[in-house]
Amino acid sequence: MSRKRIHPALKVKDLPADLKSLKFFKRRTPPGAMPGTLVPHPAAQPPRFQVLAYGPDSCREWEISEPRDLPDPKGLAEVTWINIEGLGDAAVLQAVGERYHLHPLALEDVINVHQRPKLESYGELLFVVARMPQSVMGHSGEQICFFLGQNLLLTFQEGLPGDTFEPVRERLRQNLGKLRQCGADYLLYALLDALVDHYFPLLEKFASRLEDLEDEILAHPHTQLTAEIYSIRRQFLLLRRAIRPLRDVINSLMRGSQELIGENAKVYFRDCYDHTIQLMDMLDTYREVATSLMEMAMASSSQRLNEVMRFLTVMSSIFIPLTFIVGVYGMNFKTDLSPWNMPELNWYYGYPFALFLMVATVVGLLLFFKYKGWLGIPHRLDEDD
Amino acid sequence: MSRKRIHPALKVKDLPADLKSLKFFKRRTPPGAMPGTLVPHPAAQPPRFQVLAYGPDSCREWEISEPRDLPDPKGLAEVTWINIEGLGDAAVLQAVGERYHLHPLALEDVINVHQRPKLESYGELLFVVARMPQSVMGHSGEQICFFLGQNLLLTFQEGLPGDTFEPVRERLRQNLGKLRQCGADYLLYALLDALVDHYFPLLEKFASRLEDLEDEILAHPHTQLTAEIYSIRRQFLLLRRAIRPLRDVINSLMRGSQELIGENAKVYFRDCYDHTIQLMDMLDTYREVATSLMEMAMASSSQRLNEVMRFLTVMSSIFIPLTFIVGVYGMNFKTDLSPWNMPELNWYYGYPFALFLMVATVVGLLLFFKYKGWLGIPHRLDEDD
Amino acid sequence: MSRKRIHPALKVKDLPADLKSLKFFKRRTPPGAMPGTLVPHPAAQPPRFQVLAYGPDSCREWEISEPRDLPDPKGLAEVTWINIEGLGDAAVLQAVGERYHLHPLALEDVINVHQRPKLESYGELLFVVARMPQSVMGHSGEQICFFLGQNLLLTFQEGLPGDTFEPVRERLRQNLGKLRQCGADYLLYALLDALVDHYFPLLEKFASRLEDLEDEILAHPHTQLTAEIYSIRRQFLLLRRAIRPLRDVINSLMRGSQELIGENAKVYFRDCYDHTIQLMDMLDTYREVATSLMEMAMASSSQRLNEVMRFLTVMSSIFIPLTFIVGVYGMNFKTDLSPWNMPELNWYYGYPFALFLMVATVVGLLLFFKYKGWLGIPHRLDEDD
Amino acid sequence: MSRKRIHPALKVKDLPADLKSLKFFKRRTPPGAMPGTLVPHPAAQPPRFQVLAYGPDSCREWEISEPRDLPDPKGLAEVTWINIEGLGDAAVLQAVGERYHLHPLALEDVINVHQRPKLESYGELLFVVARMPQSVMGHSGEQICFFLGQNLLLTFQEGLPGDTFEPVRERLRQNLGKLRQCGADYLLYALLDALVDHYFPLLEKFASRLEDLEDEILAHPHTQLTAEIYSIRRQFLLLRRAIRPLRDVINSLMRGSQELIGENAKVYFRDCYDHTIQLMDMLDTYREVATSLMEMAMASSSQRLNEVMRFLTVMSSIFIPLTFIVGVYGMNFKTDLSPWNMPELNWYYGYPFALFLMVATVVGLLLFFKYKGWLGIPHRLDEDD
Amino acid sequence: MSRKRIHPALKVKDLPADLKSLKFFKRRTPPGAMPGTLVPHPAAQPPRFQVLAYGPDSCREWEISEPRDLPDPKGLAEVTWINIEGLGDAAVLQAVGERYHLHPLALEDVINVHQRPKLESYGELLFVVARMPQSVMGHSGEQICFFLGQNLLLTFQEGLPGDTFEPVRERLRQNLGKLRQCGADYLLYALLDALVDHYFPLLEKFASRLEDLEDEILAHPHTQLTAEIYSIRRQFLLLRRAIRPLRDVINSLMRGSQELIGENAKVYFRDCYDHTIQLMDMLDTYREVATSLMEMAMASSSQRLNEVMRFLTVMSSIFIPLTFIVGVYGMNFKTDLSPWNMPELNWYYGYPFALFLMVATVVGLLLFFKYKGWLGIPHRLDEDD
Repeated sequence: MSRKRIHPALKVKDLPADLKSLKFFKRRTPPGAMPGTLVPHPAAQPPRFQVLAYGPDSCREWEISEPRDLPDPKGLAEVTWINIEGLGDAAVLQAVGERYHLHPLALEDVINVHQRPKLESYGELLFVVARMPQSVMGHSGEQICFFLGQNLLLTFQEGLPGDTFEPVRERLRQNLGKLRQCGADYLLYALLDALVDHYFPLLEKFASRLEDLEDEILAHPHTQLTAEIYSIRRQFLLLRRAIRPLRDVINSLMRGSQELIGENAKVYFRDCYDHTIQLMDMLDTYREVATSLMEMAMASSSQRLNEVMRFLTVMSSIFIPLTFIVGVYGMNFKTDLSPWNMPELNWYYGYPFALFLMVATVVGLLLFFKYKGWLGIPHRLDEDD
Repeated sequence: MSRKRIHPALKVKDLPADLKSLKFFKRRTPPGAMPGTLVPHPAAQPPRFQVLAYGPDSCREWEISEPRDLPDPKGLAEVTWINIEGLGDAAVLQAVGERYHLHPLALEDVINVHQRPKLESYGELLFVVARMPQSVMGHSGEQICFFLGQNLLLTFQEGLPGDTFEPVRERLRQNLGKLRQCGADYLLYALLDALVDHYFPLLEKFASRLEDLEDEILAHPHTQLTAEIYSIRRQFLLLRRAIRPLRDVINSLMRGSQELIGENAKVYFRDCYDHTIQLMDMLDTYREVATSLMEMAMASSSQRLNEVMRFLTVMSSIFIPLTFIVGVYGMNFKTDLSPWNMPELNWYYGYPFALFLMVATVVGLLLFFKYKGWLGIPHRLDEDD
Repeated sequence: MSRKRIHPALKVKDLPADLKSLKFFKRRTPPGAMPGTLVPHPAAQPPRFQVLAYGPDSCREWEISEPRDLPDPKGLAEVTWINIEGLGDAAVLQAVGERYHLHPLALEDVINVHQRPKLESYGELLFVVARMPQSVMGHSGEQICFFLGQNLLLTFQEGLPGDTFEPVRERLRQNLGKLRQCGADYLLYALLDALVDHYFPLLEKFASRLEDLEDEILAHPHTQLTAEIYSIRRQFLLLRRAIRPLRDVINSLMRGSQELIGENAKVYFRDCYDHTIQLMDMLDTYREVATSLMEMAMASSSQRLNEVMRFLTVMSSIFIPLTFIVGVYGMNFKTDLSPWNMPELNWYYGYPFALFLMVATVVGLLLFFKYKGWLGIPHRLDEDD
Repeated sequence: MSRKRIHPALKVKDLPADLKSLKFFKRRTPPGAMPGTLVPHPAAQPPRFQVLAYGPDSCREWEISEPRDLPDPKGLAEVTWINIEGLGDAAVLQAVGERYHLHPLALEDVINVHQRPKLESYGELLFVVARMPQSVMGHSGEQICFFLGQNLLLTFQEGLPGDTFEPVRERLRQNLGKLRQCGADYLLYALLDALVDHYFPLLEKFASRLEDLEDEILAHPHTQLTAEIYSIRRQFLLLRRAIRPLRDVINSLMRGSQELIGENAKVYFRDCYDHTIQLMDMLDTYREVATSLMEMAMASSSQRLNEVMRFLTVMSSIFIPLTFIVGVYGMNFKTDLSPWNMPELNWYYGYPFALFLMVATVVGLLLFFKYKGWLGIPHRLDEDD
Repeated sequence: MSRKRIHPALKVKDLPADLKSLKFFKRRTPPGAMPGTLVPHPAAQPPRFQVLAYGPDSCREWEISEPRDLPDPKGLAEVTWINIEGLGDAAVLQAVGERYHLHPLALEDVINVHQRPKLESYGELLFVVARMPQSVMGHSGEQICFFLGQNLLLTFQEGLPGDTFEPVRERLRQNLGKLRQCGADYLLYALLDALVDHYFPLLEKFASRLEDLEDEILAHPHTQLTAEIYSIRRQFLLLRRAIRPLRDVINSLMRGSQELIGENAKVYFRDCYDHTIQLMDMLDTYREVATSLMEMAMASSSQRLNEVMRFLTVMSSIFIPLTFIVGVYGMNFKTDLSPWNMPELNWYYGYPFALFLMVATVVGLLLFFKYKGWLGIPHRLDEDD
């Protein structure tokens, strides 16, 4: 549009990258498609397999290139964590699905990476979808899926930059905490907890930006700031869509009667649930702060306009009559043709009389404005109060 | 109204056709009418009958012209899907109703094509009303009704352009997926799933339009854009009225204790339910986005006004006193009649003195404006920040 | 108030009569009065009694002038419908109450015609209060009360113009549908259904007015339109107060365990309940439409102001400096007294020089305004986009 | 503040007294104080005791000066109603508390007269706190507490002007209705019902003020009206705080399993509950009316500004160029020194030429304004539509 | 930013200290950290131990420097209250945790001082987190944790200035009330009650500030006031985050089936719960008051602008045509060259004619403005109504 060239004004796109990168998402499967159809995203990466098997005393780690080398799900003696990064090859994922009896609908959800967080039970497996928030710590936002079985945990990641699970892996290797002593349910907790914890710095960043915006908006409410508040509110909406169902998932894990989650792990899921509650709490508070900040921007903008207009009105109203008076005595009526034609011009004190007329007008108007309360230049003086 | 001719301004009607075609609807039965009265819409099309009977190994398809040729509902060996397009003939529909024991109230709902989506149980039949969203893929919005019986599925469509169910029919013919292996309940799922999936591209289209509007509104907040946001919000309200009860219908199918829905099909209805949740989620998010976009348009508009007025104020306030001063020395008082009459005009440096007066006034005012912070032309400079 | 004479401006009272006639209501019984006190409204009409007794094969109708001629409630063989119009005589109503054992509190509610719709069970009788919407079809809004007993239905109307129940009476007389085959519960359904159906044309009228307002507001957002949206929103609030409890009443009738409502009738109450849900759904949608229409009116109004002010600013800012320049050369300094006194006046190209000064000023300002994007007269050009 | 003297503008305090007298309240007990501490308000009145004992056939009334003369709570043959007005003497109230075994926490609530309405069960006594609305009928708003026991009702009032319970006392004396035939539970109902009924005239007064404000705001939206709407909304918030918990209290009385409330009384509490529902209903409706009235005031104000500014713009834009033109020919360039210096001044038709220039300018601008739709003086003409 | 130097305008930071000190909080544990990791805040103080053991007849108090001197939790004969102030030493807290079998997750919450109030049951101990509001009485806002065991209460405070619990300690020492007669559950109640009571003066302070703001905003709606309302609303959001979960905690204590809370104490927790309900009630009311105050500020600001602009419009519109007229007769067309050139200048009554022209213009405009209702200077006159 040519208008855009003329007004090369603000764009939401110009905002800081990390404040706007969460996007509305798109589905790819056409309506009426067969359920369970696997259509990987064209840009998705090929899968890589990392296996980590551990018990109280051991911890082995290896990589696998072919799905046929995956450990047999039956009779696993140790807790086995299979991490699959990259969802770009339907055939390979199909093979994984068959080996571990993953339901086709669940596999479809793994590949369509814009699911809401959810918990579903498919026979012997528990299927959890969660979303990793992006940025701040260098992680891209991605969907992470978990299948929890007997002594088995499968995790599917999109394979974007940033590894959310490295700290947990490190704790396993170095046998920190009671991770190695517990089962696959505790591992699921540890991973979900790490994921949930990534939302805190993101929210804190938004909060800190909101606090800056408060001062900036008071000092100078202009369009770019409004656009930024708008953008932050949109982020909050998207974050809410990720966090609220995640909270429900963890609540189900904490309360549910799933046999796969032991009583010991539930105390920890309760702690994790507490964190998601806190996240929702922060999110709701910040959203309301952003909303009332927008209102304050409006009010502040309207009050500044008031002040500007009051000044213009006082200024104009004082000088407009003066200019009229001087205009009158600038008229060229011939004073010599008639005594009625502007005799003031010939008066001895004509000019002082005109000046006096003007001063009287100004004083009268000033008194009127003072009575109306339009003279104060309030907000600067207030600071000295 | 003659005013409209004078201001041939914007109309919601001028908006892109696919953004405004969902209309508030009207009932046709007069108050106090007998329940179960069938009054087809005058413009409704005559009914056409398509029958499709299939089992794991076979799939036959034929058309019928008279209701008396319809298969007997008793003792159907194969799954029989009877699709009736066009609701324009009360007598024919009555005959269908009698053959399959459809309740008069249900038949009335079939013909009054503006029902809310709902699920009702009439003895041996399950009655489902759903709404197909219009446009985007060439489909007109229409009401689609389902009667599910033992090995029997009746579907009633208005017969508008676009066939929602063709992909499912194709899967039946080519024996793709497990459709032919399952019963009428799975067929109902497949059709509802196809219908639900049609909402996604529509919502995505609105989302993408909202993203465009964000930039346009920041660049230039004018009335047509506001009208478009308003129009999109109205669409969302209408979509919400279609999707929310649909979600409840599918939830009932998924959880309900209806004997007609087998346990196998329920896993699939759960997936379909998940899609409707996702739709509601998107819809609510987009509605809030549209709401805060409207607020941003207001704020942005008010801040632009501020800027414009500040410029006008500075401009006027500087020149108004100047014009007064030059007006003073344009007065025609006779300087030769009295030494009091504008002696400045006769001064040797009269003109420079007047110019100096003006420069002093300008400098004084500029300092005052600078102190008030009214001089900046902020948003252009900000871009270079 | 004298101010009103000076500004004989808009009043909500000037709005179309059928858009504002629903009024906030008033109670008449003083605080602390004895419960069950019957104080008829001074303007209420004297009661008239219509009796209609029917069975599958017969239908008799007669009028009664004295309460003592009313049929005995005990052992009614036929379904007996007693319709009482006019609530102006406390003694007569008291007599009716005693004959049919109506509870004093219920009778008090019958006479205080501003009750919320409600369902109460008084021993052997079921007491239903509902509200008839007014206008559109010529009916005044009134409260209608029902007492359902064994083979007995008492209805109390205020006796205002318009007879809601005539179509049902006609169906009884002509033996249309299954009304004569069913009991008093089905009659109650038929009457409530007729009443509920009267809300549809009213809501559709508001919806159609809202659609007109959309276009008018875009073309010309002025105060009368705003007042009309406000008025419609107020109507919606009052309608909501009538419909929501009515929905709950019908829901109770449909689900409740009242012995007086048979299983057969419940299917029909379910249909009626579905209508009230649809009414609430429409009402809520229209309310949100009206709310966002008000917001659009605000935004549109603010953007028009923007445009007007931008024009004023451009216009003033261009001519104010020009007027200053011509003012300068209108000063009367004596050029012959000093070479410093406006020598330009004596230049050979003095006037062209002054004109050039002005053209340069205009071009400079135009470039500045173009840079600021204030020159476009956007919304007219947009239409040609 | 000195600014206030300069702008002796509106204050919420200037509003009609009965619209603003409900105040935010204050607690008096310091944090960490012992529970059950009785600290009467310094301005509270000394207690007065009124005893009223009645049965079906008798009704005795007497006053008591000392708490030790109070009837013994054990084995009361008649229903005994002890009304205590004035809460200013901790020792006396303590004595009453001991005589009737009132729990210290309940007594503390009696004295701290800003409790929320609530129902609490303390062993053999039922403790009810309610709030009397103020004004309209001459009553001050006050807290009223009830203790219901076997054949015993204690009521505590602050002793402010206006006696809420006089009509009930009168009904007892004159044996009107069934009050004397029933127990203390029915007495509690009668008193609560009288109290609830006092809210109706208050709400109706607000409603009627809102209806007036509608017209006034349309005619002339100024600051005082806005302040009044604001004030009414604040009242509604405070009323809501009193009515909503009161509704819950009466709901508990109506449904609860308290032995002290007989089945007979519950039908009456249901009626009273119905009144509180109606109150909440009215309150919520009026609150929404007030909210959208505020919005209409905003919109109306903004549209009036529009109109004013359009007039100013048209006026200025027409005369500013004209003033410029006449300014040009007011310049004093010496026409005799050069043929370039304003030769128009010497033209034979110079003045008509200048006048023609001005007329052409005006016509051009008028056509432009007509095209923009800025010429109409719409709202006055609309009235004649 | 240099802009800030130019506009040294308002900052939220400039607001009164006690209105803004509640801050958004920050977590310190990095994502993926081991659950139960203790990382004290660098600025946290070293722990101090106060022990207070009491029974009906005795009350001993002593200080402890080393965790190993802490009383053995087993077989405590007296109620023992151990108060730990300062959370700055992980090792010491670890030792305390081990001695009293505190769960690592609970200990982590003790140290991370920005938990939501919550109640958790860890085996034999009940863990309560609450927040003390800051300021007003000289207390800093801090997190206070309680562990309730058999005859044991552990309290953890951050050790900031101000001792919340001193009044309770004093009651214990002086044996006031029934504190010494009851168990640790009643002590927990007494402490929580003292904490809850600290919220009242804070809320009352905000309420009183809101009442002041009402008057100030009506008198003069400027930016600083808007900023203050905004700031108060933000405080309310933070207070809500502290009070709402606290209410739920106390509700659980009052209703729960915890063995550690006796029936006697529950009556008191009910009273405390009542206080938190009242707090929430006040908070919600004040929040709505603040919201509608902001709206009133907007409306008031917009109506003042209206008035100012109406004055400017009237003023300009009257003088602009006058100035034009006097400009016309200031033109220098040579009247002697042509009878068409401004013959008025030579008329005998030329000047009076011009004056008459001006008076007629003014009268015409004044009549027009009167008709439009723009002349009134309404709000000053209203005060005399």
